[in-house]
Order: sequence, then structure tokens, then C-alpha cells
Amino acid sequence: MNRDLKFAVLGGGSWATAIVKMLTENVDSLQWFMRNTDAIEHIKTHGHNPNYLSSVAFDINQLQLTNDINTAVTNADIIIFVIPSAFLESELANLTVSLKGKTLFSAIKGIVPETGLIVGEHLHEKYAIPYESIGVITGPCHAEEVALERLSYLTIACGDKSKAEIVAEHLSSDYIKTKISDDIIGTEYAAMLKNIYAIAAGIAHGLGYGDNFQSVLMSNAIREMKRYIKRVHSMKRNINNSAYLGDLLVTGYSVFSRNRMFGNMIGKGYTVKSAMMEMKMVAEGYYATKSAYKLNNDRKKKSNTPILDAVYQVLYNDKNAKKVFKELTDKLD
Amino acid sequence: MNRDLKFAVLGGGSWATAIVKMLTENVDSLQWFMRNTDAIEHIKTHGHNPNYLSSVAFDINQLQLTNDINTAVTNADIIIFVIPSAFLESELANLTVSLKGKTLFSAIKGIVPETGLIVGEHLHEKYAIPYESIGVITGPCHAEEVALERLSYLTIACGDKSKAEIVAEHLSSDYIKTKISDDIIGTEYAAMLKNIYAIAAGIAHGLGYGDNFQSVLMSNAIREMKRYIKRVHSMKRNINNSAYLGDLLVTGYSVFSRNRMFGNMIGKGYTVKSAMMEMKMVAEGYYATKSAYKLNNDRKKKSNTPILDAVYQVLYNDKNAKKVFKELTDKLD
Repeated sequence: MNRDLKFAVLGGGSWATAIVKMLTENVDSLQWFMRNTDAIEHIKTHGHNPNYLSSVAFDINQLQLTNDINTAVTNADIIIFVIPSAFLESELANLTVSLKGKTLFSAIKGIVPETGLIVGEHLHEKYAIPYESIGVITGPCHAEEVALERLSYLTIACGDKSKAEIVAEHLSSDYIKTKISDDIIGTEYAAMLKNIYAIAAGIAHGLGYGDNFQSVLMSNAIREMKRYIKRVHSMKRNINNSAYLGDLLVTGYSVFSRNRMFGNMIGKGYTVKSAMMEMKMVAEGYYATKSAYKLNNDRKKKSNTPILDAVYQVLYNDKNAKKVFKELTDKLD
Repeated sequence: MNRDLKFAVLGGGSWATAIVKMLTENVDSLQWFMRNTDAIEHIKTHGHNPNYLSSVAFDINQLQLTNDINTAVTNADIIIFVIPSAFLESELANLTVSLKGKTLFSAIKGIVPETGLIVGEHLHEKYAIPYESIGVITGPCHAEEVALERLSYLTIACGDKSKAEIVAEHLSSDYIKTKISDDIIGTEYAAMLKNIYAIAAGIAHGLGYGDNFQSVLMSNAIREMKRYIKRVHSMKRNINNSAYLGDLLVTGYSVFSRNRMFGNMIGKGYTVKSAMMEMKMVAEGYYATKSAYKLNNDRKKKSNTPILDAVYQVLYNDKNAKKVFKELTDKLD
């Protein structure tokens, strides 16, 4: 392993914290950018992130913490984005240094609202980064289990296989196994779509549907995901690989998933607004639903997406969840 | 619907009770065979099965209860087998009347130990029943949720599509949706294999593996199931349909599954024998593991089945579960 390669992680949330933990198993030091200066001071003093995965103890000598994105980018060869997609553009607006020559990996699960593109496409189109320098880090992986060092598998996708291998090598450890893929578009869409299906699972649960229905929903969701991704980027892929089906399952079956929790509240009768207020954070799948729906409906030949459509009707057209899901049950098999 | 068609359900367990409940939504009366005469008397007096799904209230005027398998078979056109596969042959040995001309549906998830065949194959080979008169009823469906009338989906497979349609029609109701299939071999193998994967999920859980690993295990299990079934009976099928993937998920993720519970005890350190004694019943997957393993290894070109092999090593070769699963983690991706 080349220990001289310099990594930067951009983001201060739980998934960013988990990725920093993975990297610290393999590198002497890395750049860690986050906006929250209080959190930076706390990490420097106490050796853990006060807000996320606070049980993870860091050796602060390994961390170059900064709230200046330019410092982090300048001092790194490989930059991992773990900023919520809704805030990506406003963070990138602070960049005064160039991204040219850098390798950019996205660990973001969502669509950039300003362009309606997934992060890889966004970086390629807006910043002219070649696809050979763009990659994706995807699960199935709850950050909380990384904190506990429970065995987890990641898929690292990149147009340039050697770059995927380098990142994979630097994330691997006793508790992290990695797999390489060249499907940067498909894995990123899967990571985005699964949040929508987790919302659907939550709504169904909130409405009182049981485990039998949940399994039918997931079985239909993976078929819908396959159709959707094929339409976006047709290539040979096994949709049942961990990066697609595994990622769907870990989110759709998790009681800890924010997206599922958000859906559950909607199913139980909360309005979208009150569910958001109650959660004090926004589920990524909320934005993803709008973007994925729009993207599909803007196409000449739209893909058949009954689950996505149902979630969209509930979240954005103020349709009654019970009625919409009753209709949905007739479209599943 | 032809209300004159006569059905018999053979079996007194929870899944048999659930199927009787479904049928009573559509037929005036049906034959219900079970060995336990106390249970028959209890149902006649109190209107519910004392041992399984006891919350389900029956109109006893609809039930022709009998402990004589010949009576049930004689008085029915369509016979649904819901007897544990390990006892099927000893029950059939009591038959003095012919099965000729009858339509036989299996709702059994397992392999007949005497022949190492799934039920459909067994009935075909041993009793010369043509495949056009053999069918399969498969989930994903916990009987407990049928009792609660929670929406569930069944797949009804038969070589003769019109017979599948008839059975589907008679099982359908407000809370049961049905789908037709012509894959009687594949659906039955799936129903059998999923119990083995549920044991694997239980062992992993018992050993302390988390949700991230569980999703990777299920993602690998469905790929392994696809390979296995393709080798047994190659035809065009979508392994992500409810009858295959859905059935795997409802069992693999259920904390109520006996198979998963059995595996969980093994993972926590129980011996196979003590886990069986503790559970007071035998998990179908225990027998299925041996049969499925043997069937695969008897083949010239065996299919790659790391999960099945791992479960077999633990259950039948007295191998240490922790060690076997540590090795398994390197074979998954």
C-alpha cells in the first residue's frame, strides 16, 4: 500500500466519521474537512466527534482537521465527498483551488438538486472531471456498525479500475471487506433509489402492513430498481450484488434508517412537514424522490416505477398514503 | 368461481390452519385431515385450532374434520399437502384409496428424506402423478400474518396453468393476492433452500454479525439460490420474484422463523442436539441442509454453494460455527 497518497474526507456526519475511521486504519494522516468549528475543537481536545459516532476514538495525530475546504483539497490527491447532496453545491462554491488532477470519490447518496444529477455526473458535467477520476463508495453499510467494527462490505466503483483498487485498499481492514466495480453510474443510482424504497417500506409499516408485505415490496423494489438503472445506464450488471440488493436490504429493513423512519411517520398520519420537523433532519430520500420521479417522467419512454410513483404522490402531491398504498398493492406481485 | 370443487387440506400445523382459513373465505365446505384427534375435537367444540393460530375462529359447518386420510382424499378433487416433509411418506403409507385423477398441491417446504426429492418430484416419481396434476403453493407468507388478515401474496405454480388458476382463485381474498407460475420445480426448491439460508442468517446473528453482514449474506444467498435452481431445472425465471427473493427475505429477516431461531441458537453456542431439544420441534431447514448438500455433491458438476456448505459443516460435521463463518466471509462479496 502506498502510504504517501494523501486523502481528504469532506463532511462531518456519521458516514464521514465512519470513513475517516476506516482510513485511519491504513494512513498516517489525512485531511478532514467539516464546517462545524465547535466539532473540530471537540475532536482535537477529546478525540471523538461529539455529534456522530461519538464512541469512535481517534488518534488526533492522524487527523488534519480544517474548516477550510480549500486546505483539505489542496493537500490531498484523493478526495472523498460525504456532504449531503443538497449542500454539495454551496460547499463547492467556496472552492478557490482547482479540482483538476484530483481523484474524486462520492460517498453521497443522493441527487444534486441544482442539476438533478447524481454526484458523479454532476462533477463530470459541471467541473469537467473525467469519469476516470470519479468514483463511488457504496454499502451496504450502516455507519453505526462500522463504529462497532462489525464486519461490513463496501463496493468501490471507478471508471479507472486501478484507482478503485487504491481506494479499496485504503478502506480495507479486519472489519471492512471491499469489492471493485466499474459501474459508477449504476451503483450511485442504486444508493439513491434505495432511500426512496426505504421510505416506502416505512410508509407501509406505519400503515400497518406486515412482514409478508414488506418482503413483496422489497422483491418488487429490486425489480423496479433494475429497470430504472438499466434505462439510465445500460450495461451488464448483477442487480443482486451487494452494492444494489444488499444496499436496498440494509436500508429497507433497518429500523435505524432515517428514510424508513420518515416514511413510518407519514404512514402513521404525520404530514410531510411535521414528520420533517419531528425528525430534526431531512431524509435524503425525500429529495431523491422528487429528482428520480422527474428524471423518469422527463424521459420519452419512462420506466415502470409504481413504488417510486406512490411515494412521490404521498410526499409531493399531498395524496392520502393509505389510499395510494392500497392502489400500489394491486400493482405489485 | 366453481363452488362445487372439493378441497382437502392435509395437516394440522400453523400453515395448514392458515390455508384452511383462506379456503373458507371461498368454499362452502372442505375436508381437513389431521392426526391429532384431540385437536379435531377441540376445533369441533370451540371453533379454533388449540395448537396453532388459535386466534382464528372457524365456522365449523364449513369443516369436514377427519383423522382418516382416506376419507379426506376420497372426498376431494384438489388435495393440498401441508404435512412436514419428514412425515409425508409415513402418512401416505396409510392411503388405501388411489390418488389417480386428483390434483395435488404441495405447501410443504422441504425434501422427502426417503427419496431426497422435493414433494412434487416425489409424488411424480413414486405415485406416477403427471406434472399437470401437481402444483405448489408458496409465499412469502408467515401463517401468523394470515391469521391477522394482513395483506399477503402467494404464488401458485402448476404444470397445468388452468389448475393453478383455480387454486389461486380459491385462496384469494381481501387479504390474499395470488400470482400464477409454471415453475413448479424452481418455486419448490426456493421454498426449501430459503430455510437453509434462514439458518445461516440465524447463525450469523448468534455469532454477533450485524445488519450490514446480514444484507450481504442475503444478497449472496439469492445469487446462490439462482445458481442452485438453475442447475436443477433450467428455465427462464426471474429469481427476484416474490416466490423466490420475497420468500427468502420474509424468512431470513424474520425473528419468528423457526429456522432462523435454530441457527441463532447454534451461533450462540448450543450444540445441534440441544438446540433441537430446546426448540421442541425440528426446523425444516435442518433436514433440507443435508438433502440439498447431498444432491449438489452427487452431481458431476456441482454448483458453487458456499453458504449451504458452511451450514452443512456446522450442522452435520460438527465444525465450529465461528470458524466456519469466518471462512465463509471471505467467500462472500
